[in-house]
Amino acid sequence: MKLLSFAKDNKEQLGVLNENTGDIVNVTKLALAGHPSLPSTMLEAIDTGNSFIEEMKKLIEKEDLTAFYENIDLIEWLSPITKPRKNIMCVGKNYRDHAIEMGSEADIPKDLIVFTKAPTTVKGHLSEVESHSEITNQLDYEGELALIIGKKGKNISKEEALDYVFGYTIINDITARDIQKRHKQYFIGKSLDGSCPMGPWIVHHSAIEDPNHLDVVTMVNDEIRQNSNTQYFIFPIEEIISVLSKGMTLEPGDIIATGTPAGVGNGFNPPKFLVSGDRIDITVEGIGTLTNVVK
Amino acid sequence: MKLLSFAKDNKEQLGVLNENTGDIVNVTKLALAGHPSLPSTMLEAIDTGNSFIEEMKKLIEKEDLTAFYENIDLIEWLSPITKPRKNIMCVGKNYRDHAIEMGSEADIPKDLIVFTKAPTTVKGHLSEVESHSEITNQLDYEGELALIIGKKGKNISKEEALDYVFGYTIINDITARDIQKRHKQYFIGKSLDGSCPMGPWIVHHSAIEDPNHLDVVTMVNDEIRQNSNTQYFIFPIEEIISVLSKGMTLEPGDIIATGTPAGVGNGFNPPKFLVSGDRIDITVEGIGTLTNVVK
Repeated sequence: MKLLSFAKDNKEQLGVLNENTGDIVNVTKLALAGHPSLPSTMLEAIDTGNSFIEEMKKLIEKEDLTAFYENIDLIEWLSPITKPRKNIMCVGKNYRDHAIEMGSEADIPKDLIVFTKAPTTVKGHLSEVESHSEITNQLDYEGELALIIGKKGKNISKEEALDYVFGYTIINDITARDIQKRHKQYFIGKSLDGSCPMGPWIVHHSAIEDPNHLDVVTMVNDEIRQNSNTQYFIFPIEEIISVLSKGMTLEPGDIIATGTPAGVGNGFNPPKFLVSGDRIDITVEGIGTLTNVVK
Repeated sequence: MKLLSFAKDNKEQLGVLNENTGDIVNVTKLALAGHPSLPSTMLEAIDTGNSFIEEMKKLIEKEDLTAFYENIDLIEWLSPITKPRKNIMCVGKNYRDHAIEMGSEADIPKDLIVFTKAPTTVKGHLSEVESHSEITNQLDYEGELALIIGKKGKNISKEEALDYVFGYTIINDITARDIQKRHKQYFIGKSLDGSCPMGPWIVHHSAIEDPNHLDVVTMVNDEIRQNSNTQYFIFPIEEIISVLSKGMTLEPGDIIATGTPAGVGNGFNPPKFLVSGDRIDITVEGIGTLTNVVK
C-alpha cells in the first residue's frame, strides 16, 4: 500500500492509492464521514501500526469509496511526514563508490556514519527547491532510499530489525557542499530550508520484498547521474537499525535515509552542481519517482 | 523569571519560581483554576512569547497564589522541555582550550561546528544518568550554557540575534568518546538515551544581562573539572544564531547548546571518565546548578 500526504483547502490530508483505479482515497475525509477509527495524518497512521493498513485494505476491497477519490494529477503533494518529530537521520558514505568519489579509498567507512537534517528541510514531491544562491554555489543532489520506523525499540538485533520498519520512501538529501566542508560536522550544510524533498509516498513494508536489493536512479534534466542498487550498501538496513538503536530508542515516525551512491554533482570533473531550473528525478524500484525542480 | 517542568501524578506540569518565597507556582494547576489564558506546558509558554511572562509577573505580585505552591524540595524535576520538537543543536569546540585538549591547536575551528543530539536524550535535574556500560567505557560530561529560541526567524543578523532568545538553561552534553570517535560524525556518540540532562529551569532572557559573560563550572564529586566563562567563546551567541539561521529557519522551542570549555574527562591524563555513582554539578552564573548522578 502507498500512503501520502497532500494539501487541500490549505489543510494536510492523508491519502492512500487505490492501486486498481490509480485514484487517491482521501482518508482524512473518510475519517470524518463515519470512520472515526481512521487516522487523519501520516504520523497518526504510523502510530496505529499495521492495523490501519488492514482496515484500509478491507475498505478499498469492500466499499464504494468513489466519493472520497482525489485525482492524482491534481493534488498538491506534501512531504509524506509534514512535520517530523525529530531530525532526519542520514547515513553518510554507505556506498563504496560514493565514498571514493568524495575523497579516496581511505574514506570508505569501517563504522556507520550518521548525521542529521533539521525537520524544517522536508518538502513534497513536485515542489520547488530553493537554490539558496546567496549562500552557496555548490548545491548538490543525493538520491536515497529512506525508511520510516513503525515501532518503538532499543538495542534491536539485526534479525529483528526489519520488523521495526513501517515503510519506505525516497529522499533527496540536498547538500550545500561548500557549507558542508566549511563547517566539518555536516548538520549546517545539510539543513538549509527545503533541502530534504521526500516522497512521493511511503510504501508499506509489506510491498517491498527485499529493501537491500532495489535499483536507485537519479536523473538531472533526463541525464542519468546516479545508477546503483541498494545491494551495494556497505551497511545494510538491518545493520543501520541495529547500530543506531544501541543505547538510543527509535520511535514511530523516525526517518532514516540510507545514503547515496556515486554520481553526485561533486563527483564529476568539473563538478555538476544544481542550478536554477534543474529538474531532479529520483527513482527507487518498488517506490516510484520523486521529482523536484530547483527554483 | 525561572520556568520549569516537573511531574505530578505522573503528568507534566509547568512551574515558575516565586523568587520572593522560594516556592514553585504550579502554572498548569493555575490554568485549570480560572486562568485559561495561561499555558500548561513549557512549549506552550514559549509559543506565547513574552506575554506569558508579563501575565505571571502580575499574578505573582497581585494575587495570593499559595494554594498553587509546590515545595521545591519535593518536586520531581523534568527536563524544562520534555519532548523537544527537533534535535538539540550543539556547538562543538567553541572554547580554544577545549579544542586543544581534544586534539591540538589545529583543532581550533575557523567556522562554527554544529552537530545534534536526539530528542530522546533529554532528562531533568536530579535524575539518574544511565552509564550505558555495556556499550561504552568512555562516558564523559560536558557542562554548557544552552539557549532556547523564542521567535521564528531566518537570516538573523548578529545585531538582532538576542531578540530571538526566549531564555537560557544548562545542559550536560554527555558523550561516549569511544563511540563518538568510531563513527566520525558525532550524532551516534552524542545521542545515547538520557545523555542530555537539562535544567534545572529556563531563565527568561530578561534576567541575564550578558549571556557572553557567565561563569561555567563543572564539578564531579565536588572536584572542579571545568571552570571557565562564556566570554571565552570562539563564537559568541549572536554569531551562533546568525550562522545557524543562514538559510535555515529557527523556531520557538529550538534548543542550542553553546559548547563546553576545557576540563572534560577526556582531557585529563589519564582520562577521568564517568563511572557509576559519580555526581556531576554544572553551575552557570545567573541560572543555577544542574545536578545528576550516574546510575
